[in-house]
Amino acid sequence: MKLDKHSSVPLYAQLKELILERIDRGDYAPGSRIPSELVLCDELDLSRPTVRQAIAELVAEGVLIIVKGKGTYVADTAEQAEISKFSAFSCSFLLLKNLADHKLDSIERVDSNEETDKLFANIQGIQGGFWQIDRPMTGNGQLIGLCRSYIPVMMFPDLAEDIRLGKPMIDIVANKYAYLPQKGNLKLQVRAAGNQEALYLDISRRAPVIAMSSILTSRSGHICEAIRIVLRPDAAILDFEQNRL
Amino acid sequence: MKLDKHSSVPLYAQLKELILERIDRGDYAPGSRIPSELVLCDELDLSRPTVRQAIAELVAEGVLIIVKGKGTYVADTAEQAEISKFSAFSCSFLLLKNLADHKLDSIERVDSNEETDKLFANIQGIQGGFWQIDRPMTGNGQLIGLCRSYIPVMMFPDLAEDIRLGKPMIDIVANKYAYLPQKGNLKLQVRAAGNQEALYLDISRRAPVIAMSSILTSRSGHICEAIRIVLRPDAAILDFEQNRL
Repeated sequence: MKLDKHSSVPLYAQLKELILERIDRGDYAPGSRIPSELVLCDELDLSRPTVRQAIAELVAEGVLIIVKGKGTYVADTAEQAEISKFSAFSCSFLLLKNLADHKLDSIERVDSNEETDKLFANIQGIQGGFWQIDRPMTGNGQLIGLCRSYIPVMMFPDLAEDIRLGKPMIDIVANKYAYLPQKGNLKLQVRAAGNQEALYLDISRRAPVIAMSSILTSRSGHICEAIRIVLRPDAAILDFEQNRL
Repeated sequence: MKLDKHSSVPLYAQLKELILERIDRGDYAPGSRIPSELVLCDELDLSRPTVRQAIAELVAEGVLIIVKGKGTYVADTAEQAEISKFSAFSCSFLLLKNLADHKLDSIERVDSNEETDKLFANIQGIQGGFWQIDRPMTGNGQLIGLCRSYIPVMMFPDLAEDIRLGKPMIDIVANKYAYLPQKGNLKLQVRAAGNQEALYLDISRRAPVIAMSSILTSRSGHICEAIRIVLRPDAAILDFEQNRL
């Protein structure tokens, strides 16, 4: 493919096609650095804004990734972590087997707020606030998302203290099996990242993310945990098991 | 927020922020048309390429939508169709209750090809090719995705003929209950749309889509259907039921 300066197709759009073609052909391999803006300007006799716009759009589309201070790279989808047997339960805090395997960003007690009201919808009767627990999600050793759980304080009044004391999970949930997640739902959508989310995940502002929310109920029929997850879409393939009941 | 021509932040990036601010404030309401490029150039004393780049990136990010011949609109997430009890089974062709409720784009017999090899992975022993069935997925009365099923011809040799004759589904699967989907998996990822997908879904080329693939096995333990789904991410919230087994 050659660029045509007399075409009605804008030059930046032609350059996008050219870069995509080079990626498809393997000239620019996944994970490798593409030539700098200046080198592309020079090679193809293009202006800087033209090259910048083509690259900016390919970054917004997830084809290219800018690594600060290093350059522009071809996104490497082969590096996507496949998360097998993914479900709301695999993201549940209450169902974690071994706390020591998981980093916690924070745990704090919060009152009902806009987010908990939205997650817990029209459910009344949860008094005493929630434990709000933030933790990173990793795959292939890389940060791929963030996960926030809300757990009613009235069900697990000593949760923060137990965690601080380093109690094993099996002791934390002892005698509370009726309060562990058993059923629920998981809503999934793709939306633009919020500012804080983008910062945390180290992606462009308003880049698309996979956003999930889940409400889990216990065997006793109570809501025992609400979860909100935001995942880098370039980092994960979710593999759900499906069983027809 | 005011644009600052002496800032080190490029003007198009400042304009993006300004447009996002106006959307957040409700000046540009969801679903409404924003001012044309020319009007924005005029109002803010900007060049056409600057305005075009800001809008192009916001379109790539799914914030704005270009409707051909009409203008540029703020994406309306409130119009997202929520698909409840979503699962691989709800997308299965073999499990459709009433064929008359569903439009089929095409049904044809195909041999093994690159796509079936990939979907059916290392499974050997499927002779005689597949029925390849394409159909649109709709939500809230709008096209939100496309769905392709592959069904081994050896299990349902008369499928195309039965459909052509208008046989009800209950007759098509009669005596074949052991071949209906019972278990499986569903892999989900977000990736850029291919050219044909973008055309079909009427979205920008390389806009992000939700891509899913599923392999379903029957009670008899055979693979009876493979499904490939591509969804417009702006059009759907998937609501999975979750049961801990």
